[in-house]
Amino acid sequence: MINSYQKIAIVGTGNVAWHLAPALEAAGYSVVQIYGRQPEKARALANQLKQGRIKTDLDFTNSSARLFILAVSDDAIKEVARQIRLPKESAVVHTSGGQPMDTLTDVPTQQIGVFYPLQTFSKQRAISFENIPICLEASNKEMLDELTKLAEKISNHVQIIDSQQRAVLHVAAVFANNFTNHLLRMSEQLLHDRQLNTTLLHPLVHETVTKALEISPAQSQTGPARRNDQKTIDHHIDYLKAYDPAYAKVYQTLTEHIQSISQE
Amino acid sequence: MINSYQKIAIVGTGNVAWHLAPALEAAGYSVVQIYGRQPEKARALANQLKQGRIKTDLDFTNSSARLFILAVSDDAIKEVARQIRLPKESAVVHTSGGQPMDTLTDVPTQQIGVFYPLQTFSKQRAISFENIPICLEASNKEMLDELTKLAEKISNHVQIIDSQQRAVLHVAAVFANNFTNHLLRMSEQLLHDRQLNTTLLHPLVHETVTKALEISPAQSQTGPARRNDQKTIDHHIDYLKAYDPAYAKVYQTLTEHIQSISQE
Repeated sequence: MINSYQKIAIVGTGNVAWHLAPALEAAGYSVVQIYGRQPEKARALANQLKQGRIKTDLDFTNSSARLFILAVSDDAIKEVARQIRLPKESAVVHTSGGQPMDTLTDVPTQQIGVFYPLQTFSKQRAISFENIPICLEASNKEMLDELTKLAEKISNHVQIIDSQQRAVLHVAAVFANNFTNHLLRMSEQLLHDRQLNTTLLHPLVHETVTKALEISPAQSQTGPARRNDQKTIDHHIDYLKAYDPAYAKVYQTLTEHIQSISQE
Repeated sequence: MINSYQKIAIVGTGNVAWHLAPALEAAGYSVVQIYGRQPEKARALANQLKQGRIKTDLDFTNSSARLFILAVSDDAIKEVARQIRLPKESAVVHTSGGQPMDTLTDVPTQQIGVFYPLQTFSKQRAISFENIPICLEASNKEMLDELTKLAEKISNHVQIIDSQQRAVLHVAAVFANNFTNHLLRMSEQLLHDRQLNTTLLHPLVHETVTKALEISPAQSQTGPARRNDQKTIDHHIDYLKAYDPAYAKVYQTLTEHIQSISQE
């Protein structure tokens, strides 16, 4: 069964599909069909590809594809799995960090798995798959081997991760991406409201992350919470309470947690 | 008064002094004296320099320096300001983001100011001052001009920032550095405790920050909180409550704040 996943269909036209489809094509695979609830989005993605054709329903019974990638939102996976019609011997994967593999149990095949690229994607930013960890899971060893072969053609960081581990990875990614980004947003807002140029903080943010990843965040921690500088903390909280009590609450919660960990 | 700050003395041997002293020397200034409560640390710093000599008390009456940089912890500034003895016509600055200029009112000179490099420093990491914003304030225009001249020799991002603005900048820096770093620590701990390799998240963290600074954090926000995916949120909170209730509290606080802002 060499190259049994040579032909691939993609369901979904969001950020993951938008980046994954061209990456698969660049690696020598054929994305033969694309389905999206909004046909114009499917068309836009197909136009990015050499041969992707638009499908307007989920009946793939006559498709030449043997791998079906459901790159849809977490909430939609179960519904799509229920509706999709497949050729015999097809394999189906979803691309979600937050959903277990068995979200796919309703698809009409035993060959199910997960193909989770651990990255934040936006249509407006080009991104190279090479360095993106791809976390794989499959219902059987043969499928896992096939998926691994495929994933290794587009990434240097392929990992076998089961559903329980992936759930933890997903929680951790919320801290590392969603929450971190939100704190950056809060800090920019604070500057913006005092007519301070938000780029003032950019060198600090770059160094924060470089340092944390190089010498570990535990060793990099500094600031009033870490050194229990209660005078500065109180001063900051007073300022934030007047500015926006919700900001003060975030400040307090994180400060208390840093203090409790530093005392351990 | 050209080059009136040609000779500089530094009080303090912490991370800021450690990086600032060699940068000043590289820019053509002479760091003639260094005082530290721990003489061996002052000696270690002096050994980094061409000519810095150690002083073992705060009596600088006979010093050839005309600019005194108090690179000491926030709590120590007032005490050092009270004890220091200076030649006539000296100028004194502190390097703190969190303290107003008037923390220096007790020094025996009217020439006071602030020289705040907005960056996180560690002894083990080399850092180039070129891109570090240096925020200046001074008690009079002549001193501000002299400080600006000096700061522009080591950095391309010199800004005049008064004490009130600097206080806001300091709060914002706590969010952008201390809190961000702490979230990275939490996410690494979550992985570590499940035998997952913490480097799995590194590409995500790099892209998070690059994207936030390039297209703004407001536009970059994704995740279950942003899209009000309450099922995933509840699932994450359940996991975290069992893992460590303090983690669940941080998750809840940040999630609620993202949700409240997204609904605005």
